[in-house]
Amino acid sequence: MDIRHFLAKQSVFINERIKKLIPKGTPEKLFDAMAYSLTAGGKRLRPILVIESAKAVGKESIEEIIDIAVATEFIHTYSLIHDDLPALDNDDLRRGKSTCHKVYSEAIALLAGDGLQSYAYELISQNKKVDPAKLVKVIYLLAHGTGIYGMVGGQAADILHEKENSFDDVQFIHTHKTAKFIQACCQIGAVLADATEKEESALKNYGLYIGLAFQIQDDILDEIGDEKKLGKKTKKDREKNKLTYPSVYGLEKSKEIAEEYVQKAISEIKVLKNPEILIELAKFIINREV
Amino acid sequence: MDIRHFLAKQSVFINERIKKLIPKGTPEKLFDAMAYSLTAGGKRLRPILVIESAKAVGKESIEEIIDIAVATEFIHTYSLIHDDLPALDNDDLRRGKSTCHKVYSEAIALLAGDGLQSYAYELISQNKKVDPAKLVKVIYLLAHGTGIYGMVGGQAADILHEKENSFDDVQFIHTHKTAKFIQACCQIGAVLADATEKEESALKNYGLYIGLAFQIQDDILDEIGDEKKLGKKTKKDREKNKLTYPSVYGLEKSKEIAEEYVQKAISEIKVLKNPEILIELAKFIINREV
Repeated sequence: MDIRHFLAKQSVFINERIKKLIPKGTPEKLFDAMAYSLTAGGKRLRPILVIESAKAVGKESIEEIIDIAVATEFIHTYSLIHDDLPALDNDDLRRGKSTCHKVYSEAIALLAGDGLQSYAYELISQNKKVDPAKLVKVIYLLAHGTGIYGMVGGQAADILHEKENSFDDVQFIHTHKTAKFIQACCQIGAVLADATEKEESALKNYGLYIGLAFQIQDDILDEIGDEKKLGKKTKKDREKNKLTYPSVYGLEKSKEIAEEYVQKAISEIKVLKNPEILIELAKFIINREV
Repeated sequence: MDIRHFLAKQSVFINERIKKLIPKGTPEKLFDAMAYSLTAGGKRLRPILVIESAKAVGKESIEEIIDIAVATEFIHTYSLIHDDLPALDNDDLRRGKSTCHKVYSEAIALLAGDGLQSYAYELISQNKKVDPAKLVKVIYLLAHGTGIYGMVGGQAADILHEKENSFDDVQFIHTHKTAKFIQACCQIGAVLADATEKEESALKNYGLYIGLAFQIQDDILDEIGDEKKLGKKTKKDREKNKLTYPSVYGLEKSKEIAEEYVQKAISEIKVLKNPEILIELAKFIINREV
């Protein structure tokens, strides 16, 4: 199978659903800002992982879980809006478009991010088709993976890092900033598909490994990627003195480590009913150019 | 009963629970920033409303719901941290102490706010004693009341307001910025106490009315309050050209409107089993000096 083609098709499907779920209301500028960032492109990797993880353990009908998958993209979008703010990364471009605060002001971007986070939980808790006990577990996994013990903690470590202890720090940052959220998406898919404990654990490990590989590849692309394809400036990490895999291990060693994580991820999920797409997806993570 | 004494006792009780629930972890500065703002004082009105609403419809044991009540204070604290940021109100003092970003930097304050929001949902979804269907409803009410259709929407309207249409705008801002969250707290208490539809509806209306009265009193205190007691500068709204009840209706008329809301709130809950505390609490809302 051609994973690039498959992912492109899936992201079109996710984009259609996002469009339907974009909230409308007053004040217009706040809602416009959220819509702007939600439709600014992206791989839609997190919702795809929720869905494909569920399918991997045998879930056939995904209609009832799509909105939950999309909620992960709402969280991802909030985190990008806040990351781009002057107080954090101070970025003007994201995916080739002006960042949210450049278009709508810092105040509105801050609130759009806050609002997208709460709306993700509103979306999930609105779901009437999924058993409430499963919804509560999904909410826990999402909040835990993207909160202070996950993404938010990693972001904070990223801006506070101390150069003295780089090996441990870069691992902490990557695990928390990126991998724990990706891991949560895989686990959420497992929970929604009534996975056995063993299956959920396999997807949890898979998610962690591809998450780490994903962030290493991100760091590598920041060093050697194509600005036009990426839709943003490269070599930003170096400019900002960020702690990255290439800065700590060098480019070649970083590539090797990412490859190892992908192999580990693949070996975890071989036990699942339908692991094929997730296997290809893991390989894609380190072959991607955007 | 002496409501001031009762509220003081209850806030000590809530503060003890907050201390137990303050999350610990790495990076230290992020966790310190959250702890700093969580322990910076405050009336703890929202958790008290959750608990007293539950008691008003007959709930006796509150042990299983305290952490959920505290989660509302985590959300409230996140909103204060973000409001104080330079991109929004740019305040240096809150409750007599330096604001979070003044002590920990803008970047860390932004992330501490984000993290407190997600941690509130983590806390609620961790609860093993409350029926999951109820937890899902609580999460929905909280996310809805504090998100884009509630608090966040009101905040955005507050900074975007147009002076031309002030009567409608000040009502929109007060309802969304303040009242919907307070309303959600009362409804959450109802849900957690297995209230009947009628009881829940009474508490929902009560919450809206006291929320509106609360914000009017806030505006009044900003005009005529005691800076020392309030622990912050007064007349900030006027300086910032904010749309407030006193600016639109004048002080006397604003007081009258607040009094009317309190009377409406009280008449809503007379049907409940134990309305006494909530009645006193409604009166306190417009007699408070802080």
